[in-house]
Amino acid sequence: MPASIPPSLEAAIAHLTKLPTIGRRSAERLAFHLLKVPREQVEELSAALIRMKDRLVRCSRCFNITEENPCPICRDPHRDSKTLCVVEEALDAIAIEASGAFKGRYHVLGGCLSPLKGVTASDLNFEMLDERIGSEGVEELILAMNPSVDGEATALYITQRYLPRGIRLSRIALGLPMGGSLEHADGQTLQHALQGRQEIHLQ
Amino acid sequence: MPASIPPSLEAAIAHLTKLPTIGRRSAERLAFHLLKVPREQVEELSAALIRMKDRLVRCSRCFNITEENPCPICRDPHRDSKTLCVVEEALDAIAIEASGAFKGRYHVLGGCLSPLKGVTASDLNFEMLDERIGSEGVEELILAMNPSVDGEATALYITQRYLPRGIRLSRIALGLPMGGSLEHADGQTLQHALQGRQEIHLQ
Repeated sequence: MPASIPPSLEAAIAHLTKLPTIGRRSAERLAFHLLKVPREQVEELSAALIRMKDRLVRCSRCFNITEENPCPICRDPHRDSKTLCVVEEALDAIAIEASGAFKGRYHVLGGCLSPLKGVTASDLNFEMLDERIGSEGVEELILAMNPSVDGEATALYITQRYLPRGIRLSRIALGLPMGGSLEHADGQTLQHALQGRQEIHLQ
Repeated sequence: MPASIPPSLEAAIAHLTKLPTIGRRSAERLAFHLLKVPREQVEELSAALIRMKDRLVRCSRCFNITEENPCPICRDPHRDSKTLCVVEEALDAIAIEASGAFKGRYHVLGGCLSPLKGVTASDLNFEMLDERIGSEGVEELILAMNPSVDGEATALYITQRYLPRGIRLSRIALGLPMGGSLEHADGQTLQHALQGRQEIHLQ
């Protein structure tokens, strides 16, 4: 620690550096910014973070984060209970929900299978998924894992676990993102985009 | 705000988004990270930020940030009081101090002249600089403004203000950064690097 940095500033920088994607330089910039703003703004930020931690719980059915348990989506009688969208993390459910493209319910696994990180099926929320399939009349699982090695492995595991039980399974499409350019797409994305091509019909 | 985001999470994200360089996606990631860590870690982060704001003041001589006034650098009798390094912000003084390459004292202007932003000389800490030059026996000002239009304008202003008073002035070198590549350097940097070339002597 450079001698010229006052201890309380250094401590704040050290705490900020613990956050993901915040390196030393970013932490310094954030700390300097917070030094300049009114004390109330820092108090409000702190209070908002603590309040968030205190209020949020995991929904005991879908494991999404929520202030009420069960969560509003699980309680909403207008959501299609026959279709579950299976995601790795709550953030993924929030992203899909924000798209407005899905009217069923979610199931948050809490991660994905990863032999390298030692994450096995018993570490993920599969027991409750079993139970929901039985009790909620689920007919289709939409697999919305990330397009990564672990995500693919998890999708494969789910397929092997639930296809024999007569559940319909589907995987969200992999392909070029809107606004993306073919020129800059990687080979795997192009491969998926070609394999998943949709036939065009005269209307 | 997507309906699926609980209010306390949305509030935390909104507060994080107010920070510089933190966009919506980064704020979501930070909030999710903080949801996962123990409550104590969030409390410690909050406490460190508040403590930093409460303890730090501006040194009344050099305007660097400090917990004691005057700051340790201004009080240190071993620092060369004849040479002042003039910087825009306290962060700049800390960066130079961390390099260990300067043993004089600093003067933090608190910004730089900017006609566009309406920042004039009276908004910056020039009065105290005048006084220090008189009372501390300052012989040289090292101008360490940023290499920007406003930084250049400020360096020019300082030159016009202090050169007539018989103060020696110098500007830190502009050129290629260590590890930088000539191929990717912009034209202005190359121009400065060429103009500031140092003759090589046989030793």
